[in-house]
Amino acid sequence: MKTIMQCVPNYSEGRNLDIINKIAECFKGKEGVRLLDYSSDEDHNRSVFTIIGEPETLRDAVIASCEVALNSIDLRNHKGQHPRMGAVDVIPFIPIKNYSIKDADDIAKQVGKYLGEELNQPVYLYEKSATNPSRENLADVRRGEFEGLFEKMQKPGWEPDFGPTSPNPSGGATAVGARMPLIAFNVNLATDRLEIARDIAKKIRHSNGGFRYIKAMGVMLEEKNIAQVSMNVTDYTKTSLYRVFETIKMEAQRYGVGVVGSELIGLAPMQAFIDSAQYYLRLENFSPKQVLENRLLEVDE
Amino acid sequence: MKTIMQCVPNYSEGRNLDIINKIAECFKGKEGVRLLDYSSDEDHNRSVFTIIGEPETLRDAVIASCEVALNSIDLRNHKGQHPRMGAVDVIPFIPIKNYSIKDADDIAKQVGKYLGEELNQPVYLYEKSATNPSRENLADVRRGEFEGLFEKMQKPGWEPDFGPTSPNPSGGATAVGARMPLIAFNVNLATDRLEIARDIAKKIRHSNGGFRYIKAMGVMLEEKNIAQVSMNVTDYTKTSLYRVFETIKMEAQRYGVGVVGSELIGLAPMQAFIDSAQYYLRLENFSPKQVLENRLLEVDE
Repeated sequence: MKTIMQCVPNYSEGRNLDIINKIAECFKGKEGVRLLDYSSDEDHNRSVFTIIGEPETLRDAVIASCEVALNSIDLRNHKGQHPRMGAVDVIPFIPIKNYSIKDADDIAKQVGKYLGEELNQPVYLYEKSATNPSRENLADVRRGEFEGLFEKMQKPGWEPDFGPTSPNPSGGATAVGARMPLIAFNVNLATDRLEIARDIAKKIRHSNGGFRYIKAMGVMLEEKNIAQVSMNVTDYTKTSLYRVFETIKMEAQRYGVGVVGSELIGLAPMQAFIDSAQYYLRLENFSPKQVLENRLLEVDE
Repeated sequence: MKTIMQCVPNYSEGRNLDIINKIAECFKGKEGVRLLDYSSDEDHNRSVFTIIGEPETLRDAVIASCEVALNSIDLRNHKGQHPRMGAVDVIPFIPIKNYSIKDADDIAKQVGKYLGEELNQPVYLYEKSATNPSRENLADVRRGEFEGLFEKMQKPGWEPDFGPTSPNPSGGATAVGARMPLIAFNVNLATDRLEIARDIAKKIRHSNGGFRYIKAMGVMLEEKNIAQVSMNVTDYTKTSLYRVFETIKMEAQRYGVGVVGSELIGLAPMQAFIDSAQYYLRLENFSPKQVLENRLLEVDE
């Protein structure tokens, strides 16, 4: 593939395997599209797909998956820990190779227009595609969630960018936009006290005075009976994983609580790991050119 | 490139630019071969080339470079600080991508056979290609160097694997073999006491009871006036950087000495950094497939 775009659509279904498989089928075995990964979370009741592909082919496959989601997911019966406002909740397009954020923005707007005009799903453009600064942040766009959507859409300033001016009864509304690569990074605490995870999330996230590129919330992992600080790292080149991880460890100490582990959901760029290795191993005078794979990727171009 | 092999041949010439350039020409502008790096050291009177390529193409380019070296370098007039026994001294083949150590061993033996039978250069197979445990370690094979080679080759157990049973008069003998990627990793101590670095090196290296894949020695960095534990990690997949680093920290504590930093010389595979990040960040259920670049490298096939 000469140009590669990535798309990481989030669907509000994490339990019904039939539906999840039907969504996956939209991406499997298609020329010019590659389904890299998908994972479903029962507690979140949500599935995250990671697909890369040539821009136009990828766009069409994503649209097909939205039709499946809108026809099979009914948010009126949906319960889960993750905030959501749409059956297909959010569709970010990310430039990967020989592709600019402007190109990703073009594709995002094409998808938004199709969802709004052909599938009757209200669409909010967010992140780099936002038509207004108040729509850049996904949390702001999604605030009130599906249940509050009807009321929110009546308020001045919250008319959608595409599609009808009231929610799709079963499908809600969808956020679509271009953004830089994002890392979903969660840290598990050795406690069942959700309020500790919530408190730490508050301390480290940008909106409450924490790191510039961290969005965070506390969630309960019912299966394991432990509390988790669940994060999005929106620019790992400026807010490094190790810095956030060590800060969470430090804040947890104040409660006498340990960190049992962490997890990455989906994909992350190599450099995010190298940054952390470089910090912990105290590497000096290190250059990315010393990583063999960086040389291989040059070769492949 | 679908399959990639690396070769890091060492030539016993570090001063005569004409010869060094003639060797480099064997790798430049060739389809399927890429010269990543080469450096010459006047004190060592030695040049090290790093080349990657498709196995067969790379093999042929390496053979061509050996012809140049054997025709232009005369060890009878060679002086330098680095131990050596051949005009082309050592030729390791390293599997990088879609390639096993067994495949690298095959190529090494093809090159060894050609050098022995067509170029009259005695060849010892070493490392993973060794036909005898006493030939695994390069230092053992090379002990006595060019000057002691005639005598050594008469001893029982030191007949070469390919080629004539006495040295090439001007070219000596060559070690050829397959090995895993090697990482040159050094840890700097906050002390000017060389004996501490030497003591730690002893504790962590395989030959004295330490880690299986660590070779180590204590050296003095005169410029910085600090002692360093200088290492070769011969299989980072089994002896991880973080484990060695933390052990050195622990052993240094016993002397009340801190670790000021570390450094990597040359290239290292991405996975070596990821292993360390995974340990320190306590990542659970992590798969190399979650690293974006691993997926990009697959896509390019």
